[in-house]
Amino acid sequence: MFARYLRALHYLAVAQIYLQDNVLMREPLRAEHVKKRLLGHWGTCPGINLVQAAMNQCIVERNLDAMLVTGPGHGAPAVLANAYLDGTLECFYSGMTRDSEGLARFVKAFSWPGGFPSHLYPGVPGVIHEGGELGYALATAFGAAFDHPGLLVTCIVGDGEAETGATAAAWHGTKFLHPGRDGTVLPVLHVNGYKISNPTIYGTMDNAELDALFTGFGWQPLFAGADDEGKEILAALDQALHRISLIRARAKEGYGDLKIRWPMIVLRSPKGWTGIKMADGRPVKGSFRAHQVPLSEIHENPEHLQLLEDWLRSYRPEELFDERGIPFVDLLGFCPRGGRRLGCNPHAFGGDRARPLNLPELDSFRIELTAENRGGKEESPLKAVAGYLAAVIARNPANFRIFCPDEIMSNKLGGIFDAPTEREYQWPVEDGNRTEHVAATGGRVLEVLSEHLCQGWLQGYLLTGRFGLFPCYESFLPIVTSMMDQFAKFLKMSMEIPWRKPVPSLNYLETSTLWRQEHNGFSHQSPAFINSLLNKKDEIMRVYLPPDANCLLSTLDHCLAGTGHVNLVIANKNPMPCWLTMAEAVAHCRAGASIWHWASTDDGVDPDVVLVAIGDVMTVEVLAAADILRRDVPDLRLRVVNVTDLLILKPGSEHPHGLDEELFSGLFTRNRPVIVNFHGYPSAVHQLLAERGAAHRFKVNGYDEEGTTTTPFDMLVRNGTSRYHVASQALRAAEKINPQVAVRTGERVLHYEYVLREFSRTIAATGEDPQEITGWKWPETATR
Amino acid sequence: MFARYLRALHYLAVAQIYLQDNVLMREPLRAEHVKKRLLGHWGTCPGINLVQAAMNQCIVERNLDAMLVTGPGHGAPAVLANAYLDGTLECFYSGMTRDSEGLARFVKAFSWPGGFPSHLYPGVPGVIHEGGELGYALATAFGAAFDHPGLLVTCIVGDGEAETGATAAAWHGTKFLHPGRDGTVLPVLHVNGYKISNPTIYGTMDNAELDALFTGFGWQPLFAGADDEGKEILAALDQALHRISLIRARAKEGYGDLKIRWPMIVLRSPKGWTGIKMADGRPVKGSFRAHQVPLSEIHENPEHLQLLEDWLRSYRPEELFDERGIPFVDLLGFCPRGGRRLGCNPHAFGGDRARPLNLPELDSFRIELTAENRGGKEESPLKAVAGYLAAVIARNPANFRIFCPDEIMSNKLGGIFDAPTEREYQWPVEDGNRTEHVAATGGRVLEVLSEHLCQGWLQGYLLTGRFGLFPCYESFLPIVTSMMDQFAKFLKMSMEIPWRKPVPSLNYLETSTLWRQEHNGFSHQSPAFINSLLNKKDEIMRVYLPPDANCLLSTLDHCLAGTGHVNLVIANKNPMPCWLTMAEAVAHCRAGASIWHWASTDDGVDPDVVLVAIGDVMTVEVLAAADILRRDVPDLRLRVVNVTDLLILKPGSEHPHGLDEELFSGLFTRNRPVIVNFHGYPSAVHQLLAERGAAHRFKVNGYDEEGTTTTPFDMLVRNGTSRYHVASQALRAAEKINPQVAVRTGERVLHYEYVLREFSRTIAATGEDPQEITGWKWPETATR
Repeated sequence: MFARYLRALHYLAVAQIYLQDNVLMREPLRAEHVKKRLLGHWGTCPGINLVQAAMNQCIVERNLDAMLVTGPGHGAPAVLANAYLDGTLECFYSGMTRDSEGLARFVKAFSWPGGFPSHLYPGVPGVIHEGGELGYALATAFGAAFDHPGLLVTCIVGDGEAETGATAAAWHGTKFLHPGRDGTVLPVLHVNGYKISNPTIYGTMDNAELDALFTGFGWQPLFAGADDEGKEILAALDQALHRISLIRARAKEGYGDLKIRWPMIVLRSPKGWTGIKMADGRPVKGSFRAHQVPLSEIHENPEHLQLLEDWLRSYRPEELFDERGIPFVDLLGFCPRGGRRLGCNPHAFGGDRARPLNLPELDSFRIELTAENRGGKEESPLKAVAGYLAAVIARNPANFRIFCPDEIMSNKLGGIFDAPTEREYQWPVEDGNRTEHVAATGGRVLEVLSEHLCQGWLQGYLLTGRFGLFPCYESFLPIVTSMMDQFAKFLKMSMEIPWRKPVPSLNYLETSTLWRQEHNGFSHQSPAFINSLLNKKDEIMRVYLPPDANCLLSTLDHCLAGTGHVNLVIANKNPMPCWLTMAEAVAHCRAGASIWHWASTDDGVDPDVVLVAIGDVMTVEVLAAADILRRDVPDLRLRVVNVTDLLILKPGSEHPHGLDEELFSGLFTRNRPVIVNFHGYPSAVHQLLAERGAAHRFKVNGYDEEGTTTTPFDMLVRNGTSRYHVASQALRAAEKINPQVAVRTGERVLHYEYVLREFSRTIAATGEDPQEITGWKWPETATR
Repeated sequence: MFARYLRALHYLAVAQIYLQDNVLMREPLRAEHVKKRLLGHWGTCPGINLVQAAMNQCIVERNLDAMLVTGPGHGAPAVLANAYLDGTLECFYSGMTRDSEGLARFVKAFSWPGGFPSHLYPGVPGVIHEGGELGYALATAFGAAFDHPGLLVTCIVGDGEAETGATAAAWHGTKFLHPGRDGTVLPVLHVNGYKISNPTIYGTMDNAELDALFTGFGWQPLFAGADDEGKEILAALDQALHRISLIRARAKEGYGDLKIRWPMIVLRSPKGWTGIKMADGRPVKGSFRAHQVPLSEIHENPEHLQLLEDWLRSYRPEELFDERGIPFVDLLGFCPRGGRRLGCNPHAFGGDRARPLNLPELDSFRIELTAENRGGKEESPLKAVAGYLAAVIARNPANFRIFCPDEIMSNKLGGIFDAPTEREYQWPVEDGNRTEHVAATGGRVLEVLSEHLCQGWLQGYLLTGRFGLFPCYESFLPIVTSMMDQFAKFLKMSMEIPWRKPVPSLNYLETSTLWRQEHNGFSHQSPAFINSLLNKKDEIMRVYLPPDANCLLSTLDHCLAGTGHVNLVIANKNPMPCWLTMAEAVAHCRAGASIWHWASTDDGVDPDVVLVAIGDVMTVEVLAAADILRRDVPDLRLRVVNVTDLLILKPGSEHPHGLDEELFSGLFTRNRPVIVNFHGYPSAVHQLLAERGAAHRFKVNGYDEEGTTTTPFDMLVRNGTSRYHVASQALRAAEKINPQVAVRTGERVLHYEYVLREFSRTIAATGEDPQEITGWKWPETATR
């Protein structure tokens, strides 16, 4: 039975890659039955089929709650074959019935415009990982297992994928997996020995080496080869499941191993197993030549056509499907049913499963502020949200996690541990108080020095319907640029699948920002992640730069419970002035940008120049510039605008948050010069404005890729974003508008330039920040 | 002696972090002797010191040619201490003499504006890796060892860094290291047990687990602890060096191990070893609290001041430095001399060492083309350069390498193996012809499925003065975004160091581009790397999009031998029309952009509209649009411009390649509408144009983040970059300029829209690309 089912999977995989007609092979194979464009990857399919067939048998025998994460996403024909055969596809694509018409549709749909792409994607039920870009399957599988105690997440890791850094790091995941409160990850390292055109590293390692390696990583490796009856893989699975149940039982009784060695399986199967042995005098099966489509030129080369026919017939399709194309009843009987099918496991439908996050009352976390005391009170925005996050954790015991690369404390988020919760770590740590807040108690915070793991874990967690947050040093989020990119693509594709409901948003809390990484120096100064996110689809990407603690609270409150977005929230961990009351902050964040009348001198109309701050440190400098100008040039008509939602700059026709022309000119006027002090690279603002045709009217300051270990004010000076730069630019721009201002511009600008020059001279000579020259401090009050 | 030298290193490390005066501790310590802003990382320093002292001893005893790559760059005080004590610093910074004045300068300079940043950077002699962002030390060390047979590259890997994916993957490096032709990498995994505020994973693993893990990775692990006499580390080094010499001897005799197990050292030292044991009632030494500056509030807390004084005096500085602050002669005698010093190893000065690349005559690789046959001949640009690269390899036996994530063959670069060369792989691969061009013969091509490794290896190779190329799928270069970012920062900092000469350029050959990844689907479609590179300093970054094979040849020829740049070269692997003769290509690439008069109808002056192509597929569509418009609207005055150097768009005042206003308007006119068909995200062009105030006149098409497995033309249609889109836009724009054109615009645009609609309708219904509707093929000839 097993062997027959496996044959059916193999047959369907090959058929998908090659056939557009005669899909039951009832006629001799002719060239016109074969797709003209042959796209797909055969080599990895037979091994995936073996795992799927074995999983099916185990699920049925033991009523397992199991899902599958397939690292080699190019093995889509295998995953689709199983989803077709067990009836999953039929539930989601009504035409993909298990009869000859449905089979023909199914087989043709693969790698066909409008059909299934050549690798896994959100349109394949049960998929939470595409496997187009390699590396992230194993971390994603762990994310799915967290807080799903009954769930088994089997994860196929290709031996090519195993060479990637992201995968290599992910093997440590068990050290963060709670045996009682989390599910199980069962990795199957699929060693078929070859990549596109090279041997794999893991394929050249013998069993002793693999055993040592994975034992060292903390696993119990089990080895299996490929056979038609699945004897070896079934035996390995049997051992693995037995071991898992022992671990779980002991964990319940509270005396589990101190270092739990979860089982993992090394499956060796020849690449392209069961496929063509030789073609054109060279080996195909068991070599890199089996990687993609092993036979090309089927239409031109009758020998190849014959080879293909023999190959397809070797699976004896007539024994698998009856006259009407219906799989024989024993095959259907072999499959799990309903939600037990690998493609139907409810956990894989995160959008359906998500229970709304229970958020605390925002107002109880507000920073008290009166309008008279704007800027007179300082608070670390990150510290301010730690208490809020502790409350979120307390209210959502198995529905919210924080993933962070060992930066919780450094980012001043330690208040999270008041939840109460701890950092989850399973393996014994030294006693005494050499550590704090680290325990094997199912804590809600996972810290590992790998941004890849944080991102992968979080993705798996979100895609199975839970909520999360990824706080990270600003300069190190670019490490996961490509993961974010692929995740955003997954969300974009998901929006086009009617049965995919939006999953909880991916929330980045980007902090330790470049303007206050003056101590760590140049390598820690990079706002590049903003630009990367801006290229994602407008429906998905959001970038917030709340100017103070209350605004950060309001922003996080908005983002955490949301679905379908990738939110980048940027805020400082250092004490920063508070500008807005909570009520004002909520209104400001809702608008995305506001005129700060209390800092403006244009009485709400017809300014000479508009100063715009985007970002918390930039807000300080813009308000300080406004202070200086109010004092020095009282008749200047100045407007101060603060932007907290970066995407309001895009045209309303493009981004859902984009302002329409009227609102835009309501803030930025129709024709006045605008000076923008932006947190990141000016290119980000330039590109957003370009589509409005407004770019020429905006002078944009920002990070100019200058920095080292220095003082905070020097960072501003080096990059041309200091209050004196802004003040000079404002006067130069305004003098063209307001003749009264023009009178004193030259003299004042000369003075500001003098201050900057003196500052740079002094710091170069002494290494000391001459505060007496610059008067640099947060402006004590910005009210008038 | 060892112990005294080690004490001196520890003392200097602590002094750098804390002291600004009284650096010899000749007076009782007072608050004003202590820096006001305490920045630095103590925890990792003592272990680094131990390794440095031991390396010094081994170098002297054995006259080793050795350099050091320090993963934990925040241990800069340790590296600086050794560089000061052995006189390296004095050679590069004349004030840093080994006497009391020099010592005072040296100690104060650390983490001080204008001095040394808080982590390693190019201003520290001998450094080829900053270690600010963690993960890349080990791969960099391998890059330095390649083709340096006599060299020992010792690489300290922190146990925090070891958690990163990039490091986890890098342990496989020995499988690519030739025992005869390459140098040796000796990793020292420094296990001190704690990160910023967490235990490290490796710190919770016992020796048996570490032994299993690294044995599995293919190493021979040796274990050492920390002691004042360095007995354990010296014994481990002794064993390691003995083993290394055995391996080398056997390799020379040609009967080396089949699987060479190189030694590596696991060094366990308490975090902050020799430092403060307890502060404020909590352990410091041996806990996460020793990570950064272990005592804060020195100025406010007399108890802390006393602790610091005791700590500093525990190293007995009076026994280390004489009255004049000169280190006692035995300490100086302990150090290696000249180029044997860790900071002076000549290999670390890649800019000085680089021997110019010997490039073949470009013309012998040209694609023959006559002006009459433009577009009538097709050639895969990548295939065309493979022969050229083979010649580069043949002419530069130990000075040029190609690093690639298993994509050489897939990217049609197989011609490289005509060099002759092979892909280097040390471990035995299966016999028979299951592999091709894989051998343990010192080949010039390294393929591993890890972009992180490719980048890290290449960086180490370049920084030690050799040349290289990194061909990669376009969509997977974003995996190394942050590495490129950090490398560009390293180059930028290096430009400010007078004794750092430019190293060979980092060359990316970005191919398998999104427009022809229609078969692999959405995950394989991302031009994001362009945007990432554009934010780097203008002096460093270059982006080239050669429109055909001859232009690609000319571009690579320009980039390969260059120094000081990060070059991104983007070209297709599919057969593409050839447009320019080699002479024209060279001239076009030198200019960066040209009017293609043979495709234009404006007779060189006063066009109604300018069509601009940037990228090879975009060039095809723009030329096709020009064809269509010539036929349909003969009186349209059309100019076709091709841009091969993206940075010409930037203002000349910003980027060295930026065009000045006159040249810019010479190409793009002063006031005519311009339609740009751009290879990547439109945001890249928008941001470049924004600074010119020209953005509003340019309509930019590009990748709109739409795609799946479909046909090539559908990719263009989905993203609005097809010939019909361009033709419509051109007519709509031109009708405002040219009244004659306006007459027929509506009708023609309606027709183009009809074609696009029919195309989309047909492909949605049938999955077939209706070429009869679109006439889609490469335009046979674009000449008039």
